[in-house]
Amino acid sequence: MKFGGTSMAGTERIRRVAGIVRAQAAKDSEVAVVVSAMAGETDRLVNFCREANALYDPAEYDVVVASGEQVTSGLLALTLQSLGCKARSWLGWQVPVATESAHGKARIAAITADAMIARLEAGEIAVVPGFQGLSEEGRVTTLGRGGSDTSAVAVAAAIDATRCDIYTDVDGVYTTDPRIVAKARKLKAVTYEEMLELASVGAKVLQTRSVGLAMKAGVRLQVLSSFVGEDAVAADDLPGTLIVSDQEMDELVKGGEMERQHVTGIAHDKNEAKIILTRVPDKPGAVADIFAPLADASINVDMIIQNVGRDKGETDVTFTVPQADLARAQALLEDRRGEIGFNRIITDSQIAKISVVGVGMKSHAGVASTMFRSLSDRGINIQAISTSEIKISVMIDEDETELAVRVLHTAYGLDAED
Amino acid sequence: MKFGGTSMAGTERIRRVAGIVRAQAAKDSEVAVVVSAMAGETDRLVNFCREANALYDPAEYDVVVASGEQVTSGLLALTLQSLGCKARSWLGWQVPVATESAHGKARIAAITADAMIARLEAGEIAVVPGFQGLSEEGRVTTLGRGGSDTSAVAVAAAIDATRCDIYTDVDGVYTTDPRIVAKARKLKAVTYEEMLELASVGAKVLQTRSVGLAMKAGVRLQVLSSFVGEDAVAADDLPGTLIVSDQEMDELVKGGEMERQHVTGIAHDKNEAKIILTRVPDKPGAVADIFAPLADASINVDMIIQNVGRDKGETDVTFTVPQADLARAQALLEDRRGEIGFNRIITDSQIAKISVVGVGMKSHAGVASTMFRSLSDRGINIQAISTSEIKISVMIDEDETELAVRVLHTAYGLDAED
Repeated sequence: MKFGGTSMAGTERIRRVAGIVRAQAAKDSEVAVVVSAMAGETDRLVNFCREANALYDPAEYDVVVASGEQVTSGLLALTLQSLGCKARSWLGWQVPVATESAHGKARIAAITADAMIARLEAGEIAVVPGFQGLSEEGRVTTLGRGGSDTSAVAVAAAIDATRCDIYTDVDGVYTTDPRIVAKARKLKAVTYEEMLELASVGAKVLQTRSVGLAMKAGVRLQVLSSFVGEDAVAADDLPGTLIVSDQEMDELVKGGEMERQHVTGIAHDKNEAKIILTRVPDKPGAVADIFAPLADASINVDMIIQNVGRDKGETDVTFTVPQADLARAQALLEDRRGEIGFNRIITDSQIAKISVVGVGMKSHAGVASTMFRSLSDRGINIQAISTSEIKISVMIDEDETELAVRVLHTAYGLDAED
Repeated sequence: MKFGGTSMAGTERIRRVAGIVRAQAAKDSEVAVVVSAMAGETDRLVNFCREANALYDPAEYDVVVASGEQVTSGLLALTLQSLGCKARSWLGWQVPVATESAHGKARIAAITADAMIARLEAGEIAVVPGFQGLSEEGRVTTLGRGGSDTSAVAVAAAIDATRCDIYTDVDGVYTTDPRIVAKARKLKAVTYEEMLELASVGAKVLQTRSVGLAMKAGVRLQVLSSFVGEDAVAADDLPGTLIVSDQEMDELVKGGEMERQHVTGIAHDKNEAKIILTRVPDKPGAVADIFAPLADASINVDMIIQNVGRDKGETDVTFTVPQADLARAQALLEDRRGEIGFNRIITDSQIAKISVVGVGMKSHAGVASTMFRSLSDRGINIQAISTSEIKISVMIDEDETELAVRVLHTAYGLDAED
C-alpha cells in the first residue's frame, strides 16, 4: 500500500491511513506500506537547501529532504501500534533499498528484503519511507520528486506482493479528463502500456517511471482514492483502477469482467510547443544536423513532419518540443543556423496534442480514420500526426483541445450511460 | 565544535555558524562539528509522536525525533560548501555511533571513526548530527534531551581532538549566576569535578553527562558563546571557559595563567524539597526502611539529618528530594507508614540549596567556617549541611537564596573589580 503526501499531512490524517492499513492487514496477513512526506514538507526542506547553497551538493540535499519520509514512516508505525497492530519502520538504509549513486535522482538497483520479509511473516506491518535509498558508498539517496510511487512498486516486487495499491488524490484512471468530459468513465482496468501512454500524455495519476517498473517486474497495480474508508477495504469493495499485463487484461475480458474496447482513453497535452524551420536544404544529413544537438541537450522531440517547399531542393521541417525547453531549443538552433542552413524559425506554443490510446487498436483498423473524420467533421485542423502500436496522436490548435476531446470521447463510444 | 539549537535555528543562523567553523578550519586542518536540531524542531517532532500514540514505542519515537539533527547536519554541510569548504554530513548510523538499545535515552557504547578520520585528514570538515546513534539491532537511537553535548564529547574522544568547543547561549562559566550577582566573574578555567558540582547544583551550561564523559575520556572542553564572531575565532581570541583536569589546572596556575582560589563558584538550586518524618523509632534499620524504597523508585535523596527528639528512643529524620519527585516520595512513604513507624510527614518545597564549590578547598581549612559565619551574620538560618571533597552545601529558606549567594560571593573574594 502506498500513501501520498496529502494522506500523510498531519497526525489526524495519518490516523485515517492507519485505519485503512489495519483493515487490509486484518484481511491479508502481510502488509507493507510505503509513505510520502507530509504535504508541503519536502518543499520546505528543498527551500532550506536552496537557502543554504544555491548550487547544492545533491548528496547533502538528499540527507535533508529524505528526513520528511523518515518522520511519516515513524509516525505511521506509532499510529498503527496505537490501533493494536504490530508495526515498525524500515528506513531506506535499513531495508536496504540499494540505489545508484546519482543523488537527487537515483534509480533503485536492488532491494534485499529478507529481514523485512521475516518480520512480515511474523505478522508485523512494515512501514517504508518512500523516495529514499542507500548508495554503494553508504550515503542517503533520493529518487527524485514523486519517487515514492517507484519505491512502492520496487518494494512490492521485492516482497513478491499480490498487489500494489497506490492511494492517491484521484479515485482511479478515467477514459479522459473528467473536468473536460462530464461523461468520462472510470476504467476498471488498463494495461501497463496504456497507462504509460495515458500518463505520458497528461493523465497525471502515477509517476511514469513507477508504471514502467511495475510492467518490468510484473507488479499488479491498483490506483485508489485515499478517501476510501476502512470499511470499504474490509468489505473488499475497492472501486479503483487495476493496472495489469496484456495477459491479465485478456483474462479479465474472457471472464466477462471487462469489455474489450478498441480505444481505452483519450489524453490531451497542452505542454508542447511547435517549431518550424523554413527552407532547410533537402540533402542527406540535414535532419541529423537539426535533431542531434537537441538530443545532446536532452530536449525531447516528439512529432516531426517534413513538407517539401515551393522551391525545389528545400523543405520546411516542423516538430514539437516541451514548452519548458522551447527557448533553449530555439537558442541551440540559432547557434547552428550556418550548419543547418534554414531560413527562418517560427515557433508556436498555442498547440495541443490529443491522443487516443488502446491496446484494442492493435487488432482493429478503422481507429485512425474515425479520429481524422470526427475531427474534420467539426472543422478541427490536424497539423501533424504521430502513431505507435497502441496510440494515435494529432497536433491541433490549443483552443480546440476541449472540443476535440469531447468529440473523440463520443466517437469511440466512451461516454458513460446516463 | 558543537552548536546548539538556537545557533542552528534557520539558514541565516546556520550561515553564521558556518563562518565560525570555516575560521576554525583555516587555523587547524581538521574540524568535526556536532549540531543540534533547529530550536523548537525537536518539540514539534515529540508532539507529533505524542499525538500519534500517547504511549509511544521509543524505537519509533527515535526514528521521528532524530530527523531534526539530520536536517541541520545536511544544511550545515551545504552552507560550508557554499563558503568554499570541503564538508560532509555523517549520520549516526554512518559514523557509526554505536549505542545501547535503550531507545530515547541510549548511552554511547563506542564510536568507530576510522572512515571519518580518513576524510578529516583529507581536509574535509565532518558534520555530525548530535543526539543520535545506532543500536546493535541496526535501529536509530537517541541519547535523551540535551544529548548533543554528550555526542560532541564522544566524537571529540573518538577522533582524539585537541579540544571540544561547546558553543552555547552563555559565554562561559561564571563564579555564580550573573542575574543574581552583577559582579559575577567569568572563569577562565574550571576542573571537571568543579563543573560537575556547579552543573548539578544549578549552573545549567552543559549536560552533566557530557562533563562526566569528558572527564573519563580526558577531553578538554571549552564553553563559548555562539555569538562570538568568526574574527574572534581567527584571532584565537576566544573568551570562553576551559573545563580541564586537575593536572592541567595546576599547570595553568603554575604558569601564572590562573590564580588559585579556595572557592571557584557559588551555585544555588531551588528545585529541591524537604521532607521531615517525625518520631521515627530510633532503632537499627529504621533509616534503611525509609531510603531503600526511595532508591528503588530512582528518587534521589540528597541532604539527610537526624535530630534526636524530645522523647527518648525516637528521632526526626529530615532529607531533601527533587521537587518533581516530592508527591511520589510522599506516597511511597505513606504506603510504608507501618513498617517505618513515623508519626507525621511534613513537607516543604520553599527551600533552597546553596553550594560553594572549589578544588582549592581540599587543601584549605576555613572554607566551611567562613560560609557558616557569613550566613549567620546576616541572620540566615542553616537548616542542613552536606559536604563533599570540593563542595559544601547548606539548606536555607528559599526567600533568602539571592541574599545568601551575594553574601558568599563577597565573602570568598569572588566579586569582580570595578
